[in-house]
Amino acid sequence: MGKGRLEAFSDGVIAIIITIMVLELKVPHGADLAALLPLLPVLLSYVLSFIYVGIYWNNHHHMLHASSVVDGCVLWANLHLLFWLSLIPFATGWMGENHFAPVPVAFYGAMLFMAAVAYRILERALISRNPHNPTLALAVGKDRKSLISPVLYLAAIPLSFLHVWAAFAMYVLVAVVWFVPDRRIEAHLKP
Amino acid sequence: MGKGRLEAFSDGVIAIIITIMVLELKVPHGADLAALLPLLPVLLSYVLSFIYVGIYWNNHHHMLHASSVVDGCVLWANLHLLFWLSLIPFATGWMGENHFAPVPVAFYGAMLFMAAVAYRILERALISRNPHNPTLALAVGKDRKSLISPVLYLAAIPLSFLHVWAAFAMYVLVAVVWFVPDRRIEAHLKP
Amino acid sequence: MGKGRLEAFSDGVIAIIITIMVLELKVPHGADLAALLPLLPVLLSYVLSFIYVGIYWNNHHHMLHASSVVDGCVLWANLHLLFWLSLIPFATGWMGENHFAPVPVAFYGAMLFMAAVAYRILERALISRNPHNPTLALAVGKDRKSLISPVLYLAAIPLSFLHVWAAFAMYVLVAVVWFVPDRRIEAHLKP
Amino acid sequence: MGKGRLEAFSDGVIAIIITIMVLELKVPHGADLAALLPLLPVLLSYVLSFIYVGIYWNNHHHMLHASSVVDGCVLWANLHLLFWLSLIPFATGWMGENHFAPVPVAFYGAMLFMAAVAYRILERALISRNPHNPTLALAVGKDRKSLISPVLYLAAIPLSFLHVWAAFAMYVLVAVVWFVPDRRIEAHLKP
Repeated sequence: MGKGRLEAFSDGVIAIIITIMVLELKVPHGADLAALLPLLPVLLSYVLSFIYVGIYWNNHHHMLHASSVVDGCVLWANLHLLFWLSLIPFATGWMGENHFAPVPVAFYGAMLFMAAVAYRILERALISRNPHNPTLALAVGKDRKSLISPVLYLAAIPLSFLHVWAAFAMYVLVAVVWFVPDRRIEAHLKP
Repeated sequence: MGKGRLEAFSDGVIAIIITIMVLELKVPHGADLAALLPLLPVLLSYVLSFIYVGIYWNNHHHMLHASSVVDGCVLWANLHLLFWLSLIPFATGWMGENHFAPVPVAFYGAMLFMAAVAYRILERALISRNPHNPTLALAVGKDRKSLISPVLYLAAIPLSFLHVWAAFAMYVLVAVVWFVPDRRIEAHLKP
Repeated sequence: MGKGRLEAFSDGVIAIIITIMVLELKVPHGADLAALLPLLPVLLSYVLSFIYVGIYWNNHHHMLHASSVVDGCVLWANLHLLFWLSLIPFATGWMGENHFAPVPVAFYGAMLFMAAVAYRILERALISRNPHNPTLALAVGKDRKSLISPVLYLAAIPLSFLHVWAAFAMYVLVAVVWFVPDRRIEAHLKP
Repeated sequence: MGKGRLEAFSDGVIAIIITIMVLELKVPHGADLAALLPLLPVLLSYVLSFIYVGIYWNNHHHMLHASSVVDGCVLWANLHLLFWLSLIPFATGWMGENHFAPVPVAFYGAMLFMAAVAYRILERALISRNPHNPTLALAVGKDRKSLISPVLYLAAIPLSFLHVWAAFAMYVLVAVVWFVPDRRIEAHLKP
């Protein structure tokens, strides 16, 4: 089964997810700069989620590029990942509109955790379908980042109730760590 | 006529359908967990529809992959299927926001029935255009699942008025049956 | 310049246009069939516009398939067509929510007229860029349908104020005429 | 790393951006032409933004077509551009619904400025990854238009507070300048 249509469909869904988040930035009624002030938390949460969804697209791109074949399990593992990513706009809007209140910030972390778990499942499904693919094995074999991220998301959930900005800082930290593209895969892919 | 653009357009429409459903999950005003409670039925109906649209994409993918050529009839049969799928977000939102009241649950079944009929018509259009394609013939020839599903959807419509969760259970049952990818086609496609 | 990305972008925009129209079908508050009744005109206008956008996609697909090369003029003629098509959801919603009042029905005809003119301009741009392409010349050379349709749309505009359903019947009539795929192109494309 | 998926993802995001802008054209309640009058500024700002996003898609298309390879930096420079473009619908809606009040018009210019800067960064990232590509070098080497445009956007920001239509006229002027496709690249690409 070709991976082309899986990539195209994922691109479509991720493109829509990353774009409909901006619909939460509702056009304000006032025409002065003060009218934009209440939107700042919404914009901040949008920026963070834009970067997260961008990271997922980026890594999804790399991982599928390194894979040769896909099967039914991969298709469903991919849809499972897209499901959790599709809840990111909701979590983003809830966090932003409530000005980073503890429960929405914890909920955002829970959604990031579920997406990270789903990504891990997709990784496993791809490896079990492409067992002798050295690029893919190298890409995900020693992937410490994808092991540590879920732990940090989980830690951020109780932290939201103690000090909400510490939890937010953890989300930013994980994003920064992932922002750096996976040099190992890219180095291996280069001719 | 190439099938590439038909696949690309269908991927686009299905990607949008599966993603705009999440817009029915309206960001609540409260910032506590209690604010999420009224959204649980909406989330439950979203999960069910996400799986259904995922199944349609999955099988659509398999069926077109097995086909060699398409014609004007196939294009219109495909648009007809996309039309009924495009009503799924509406039916999902109506069912979820009314907490699985009988009429919306029956209406949801009617939409699933129409989509199943439209899928069957597309199947027939593809077979009549690709008469000597053994993969496609094998894929849809003995397709008991696609014969039984519309019957179960039809049965769920009156059942919604007797016992609404029995009707819902039938939708879940059909989804589970379809969730298992069509082993026969995949087995045949493997080299 | 390759035409692949032009097709992909147009597919994306048309897929979004055809799908966001369904967002005008707002989920009703009631949970009985009576709650769906006020939506019937909205659904009727949705069906008509779905078929129109489907026809445009279909013919766009054929016309670009028959073309070999595109240039900057074609890109802008294509964006011009997409602009008028992007106003179809607005015109559809206005017509449906006002239960086919004369002004919205006339406005809908004006939008169809502009889209038809834009399609004609795209046709001319493609022919002037592909002057020696016999498939394309055959496809659009004697295209009586695309000459008559704008005349009928124009005629429907005053007719809306005399007898609104006669104007609506004209839109249906043109859709039916176009629904039949262009046999000449397909016949020529067949090996 | 292939550029195909980068183009496909960008096409998807830009297609959604250009299309969701039309959602700001809210269906009016009245059924007469007077009901459309308050929408005229919204429509005017929509037309301007449609042309701007179309120009970005067009030039993005050309620039990536001329490039041979992409890397992680290009992926992120591209996402950065898409981020600023994703704020165009918000700026468009704010400007249109406030009937071209000074602050929203200045804000619109600021968004155009950021998008232009992001485009420039993407240009640099592509050139540093494709250093010996003559088509790309020619395309962006003497690119006076992309140097002057940000200056004009910046100038329009204070101008909005002096004479709002002069600022608007500058946006129109830049759009007209860009509307003309880059003859040099096209001339070079022609066989």
